[in-house]
Amino acid sequence: MLLESLRNQVLAANQEIARRGLAPHTFGNASGVDRSGNRPLVVIKPSGVDYATLKPEDLVITDLDGKVVEGRLRPSSDLDTHTLLYREFPQIGGVVHTHSEFATSWAQAGRQIPCFGTTHADYFHGAVPVTEPLTAEEVSSGYVRNTGAVIVRRFRAEGLDPVAVPGVLVAGHAPFAWGKDAADAVEHADVLEYIARLAFRTVTLNGLAGPIPSHVSEHHYLRKHGPKATYGQR
Amino acid sequence: MLLESLRNQVLAANQEIARRGLAPHTFGNASGVDRSGNRPLVVIKPSGVDYATLKPEDLVITDLDGKVVEGRLRPSSDLDTHTLLYREFPQIGGVVHTHSEFATSWAQAGRQIPCFGTTHADYFHGAVPVTEPLTAEEVSSGYVRNTGAVIVRRFRAEGLDPVAVPGVLVAGHAPFAWGKDAADAVEHADVLEYIARLAFRTVTLNGLAGPIPSHVSEHHYLRKHGPKATYGQR
Amino acid sequence: MLLESLRNQVLAANQEIARRGLAPHTFGNASGVDRSGNRPLVVIKPSGVDYATLKPEDLVITDLDGKVVEGRLRPSSDLDTHTLLYREFPQIGGVVHTHSEFATSWAQAGRQIPCFGTTHADYFHGAVPVTEPLTAEEVSSGYVRNTGAVIVRRFRAEGLDPVAVPGVLVAGHAPFAWGKDAADAVEHADVLEYIARLAFRTVTLNGLAGPIPSHVSEHHYLRKHGPKATYGQR
Amino acid sequence: MLLESLRNQVLAANQEIARRGLAPHTFGNASGVDRSGNRPLVVIKPSGVDYATLKPEDLVITDLDGKVVEGRLRPSSDLDTHTLLYREFPQIGGVVHTHSEFATSWAQAGRQIPCFGTTHADYFHGAVPVTEPLTAEEVSSGYVRNTGAVIVRRFRAEGLDPVAVPGVLVAGHAPFAWGKDAADAVEHADVLEYIARLAFRTVTLNGLAGPIPSHVSEHHYLRKHGPKATYGQR
Repeated sequence: MLLESLRNQVLAANQEIARRGLAPHTFGNASGVDRSGNRPLVVIKPSGVDYATLKPEDLVITDLDGKVVEGRLRPSSDLDTHTLLYREFPQIGGVVHTHSEFATSWAQAGRQIPCFGTTHADYFHGAVPVTEPLTAEEVSSGYVRNTGAVIVRRFRAEGLDPVAVPGVLVAGHAPFAWGKDAADAVEHADVLEYIARLAFRTVTLNGLAGPIPSHVSEHHYLRKHGPKATYGQR
Repeated sequence: MLLESLRNQVLAANQEIARRGLAPHTFGNASGVDRSGNRPLVVIKPSGVDYATLKPEDLVITDLDGKVVEGRLRPSSDLDTHTLLYREFPQIGGVVHTHSEFATSWAQAGRQIPCFGTTHADYFHGAVPVTEPLTAEEVSSGYVRNTGAVIVRRFRAEGLDPVAVPGVLVAGHAPFAWGKDAADAVEHADVLEYIARLAFRTVTLNGLAGPIPSHVSEHHYLRKHGPKATYGQR
Repeated sequence: MLLESLRNQVLAANQEIARRGLAPHTFGNASGVDRSGNRPLVVIKPSGVDYATLKPEDLVITDLDGKVVEGRLRPSSDLDTHTLLYREFPQIGGVVHTHSEFATSWAQAGRQIPCFGTTHADYFHGAVPVTEPLTAEEVSSGYVRNTGAVIVRRFRAEGLDPVAVPGVLVAGHAPFAWGKDAADAVEHADVLEYIARLAFRTVTLNGLAGPIPSHVSEHHYLRKHGPKATYGQR
Repeated sequence: MLLESLRNQVLAANQEIARRGLAPHTFGNASGVDRSGNRPLVVIKPSGVDYATLKPEDLVITDLDGKVVEGRLRPSSDLDTHTLLYREFPQIGGVVHTHSEFATSWAQAGRQIPCFGTTHADYFHGAVPVTEPLTAEEVSSGYVRNTGAVIVRRFRAEGLDPVAVPGVLVAGHAPFAWGKDAADAVEHADVLEYIARLAFRTVTLNGLAGPIPSHVSEHHYLRKHGPKATYGQR
């Protein structure tokens, strides 16, 4: 029952990726996790299936180690990244991988995205980090899982909170984003692309542009998060 | 009665923001003011409501101090900027806030937009100004109101006329535009985005590009404004 | 009769300007000329009328000096540029003015567009020229007519043939294009925008990029023009 | 019979070029080859016909030397490039020529596209090469055929495999792409445009950006190609 609702949510999130133009062809995928049972279950897009024809029963269900529990099709080739993120970031309920154009360009350039403005600050607490490239050893010993590992290593090294920084650029690859569920993760992936577009033009206009003052970014982050949030109809 | 018509105008202006792609998600808002009574009334978008589902009765009515007079929903979180602009710029009847991409990029770069061409000159008399960032004191003592205050301070410091310069870039944030009513304000917000796009490419093509000669920009500005206007069917 | 057909052609050309996104708001206009009678007649868009609502009877008919012969509305404020071009370039039958984004950016940057590729060479024989800015005297003594005059002066100074170079950038303003009729002029305006986009990215990628070898550009130009044309179903 | 199916495939590929926005106006064409008979036959778009009105019977059938076997219309003016590629690259079954904007900009800039990311690596083994410009002699002795010749020369000089590198930039002109059939060729043309967009922004963000490590690009290339492919539902 709960799983049916998760399945629909994950389907909707995958379709939203396509609708928002975040992933050309089939370069993208969304998943969600149900942590309510003894054995948490992940619902994820199947590999290489077109968004337009995706049906609920095409989705694949696995456990947190990526073992398929239900589904006729092969899970997304990025499954091991998703499951690693769910294991290491227990606060998150949905993961989205896209190849959205501007975020991917920052990933290819190997640059983090500084907090140049208030929209960035509303969603990401500080810069959007960029990982190191995977080593040859990491590629050969489990490329997809280690894509998750370099993300986690980056967050640990900088002491970043995945709730406050709901996305990352994997160097030379593309962005991952996450959130409390799959819908939240897609919204973060979409906002990440938006701030990547703004930041691209910002550095083109001003090569010396720096982050906004921390008293401004803190104010914006806190008005949307935490106990004193003032934004929206709550 | 008058208020009903204002309500419809403000609804249409908010929808126009979305239709023109000036504000992704709910990052934008329009308001209008009715100054005909003893107590001028502001009609403004509610906070965090999707443009697609916005209905006339969702709009919030406040006085010029931001006190809610009518409406079930919370007003836009940017209300205090709107009301301050209405108090300080008595000539204006509508205010629009967007996060349109290129104008926001100029705001993030902290650069004013020089008058590089005749379309700019048709709508803005001189450069589109950029504010200073808010100080820590201004953020903590009333962030939204002081966003309006830094705009007004910039106009006073340069002796700018808000009728001749119907918009501004708030540094590290985004643009505000205004006009004789909400529809006029949206048009200015849209033109501002258009000239921001042109100007972005102009400075990329020619880092030394300067404003057009004043005899050209004056001619263009005056053919659309003032007693000798020759443009359109008037 | 002939004039009815011209009227429809000019209407279609104006709608095509909007459909192709070459002119935001009402920033653009198309005209055509009928040179068959003793007194050549120009059909042109009225000033400031929205493309979506434009009807055949809204178009304005003038002579080559801009004297209105028929029409309830005021002609486009750019009329005197169109008529001057018709007087000075007797080979052309249609004129289009747009504010298309990339061509306008080159105009604002004051740079001609070099022939960087074969599509450019298929349509424009050599660079797309850019005019000088108008002098103060030219602005005050007839701004619109003199916009045409600086175009013609540029063509005379460089010995350019308006049939081989069917468009121009007016410095700090926007492009004009022309052709054998209004439809042809719109096509040239559209191709001009396309090559302006390509050229923008070309110079960004390679600041030292130069024109393609003349043996290539001549070959492309001649395969679409002149007695040995091999392109299309002719 | 087989030819009917090829005809439909080539029609669909030409329509897909237009649908994906890879070729403004009629600047593009797709063909396919049937190598099953003694005399291999090429089905190709006719010259200068609009994609919207293209019908199966408009397609032209020629042999590998470009001699028309069937069809009322003139074949694409790029026919001789297609047939040369089919003769020299016997592994390929479809060829697509576009003027897609970013790939064409790289071609105009005369720069190859380095493998900056994993999507590039999924489709192209190494950089997307750029040809030399044609010499005056090559232009005059058979411009279209020699466009194919400079492509082949580039592949021979670098020892490139046309299956592993399914596309090229012709300097100062535009891209060609190919594949096992016409549909595959269009997909490669579309991915080429996508990676050209990413790469444009990558070099803008980081002028010193280099290719991703070969252990990453090899891994990506091999997961989609060859006996150990793991991507999709196979």
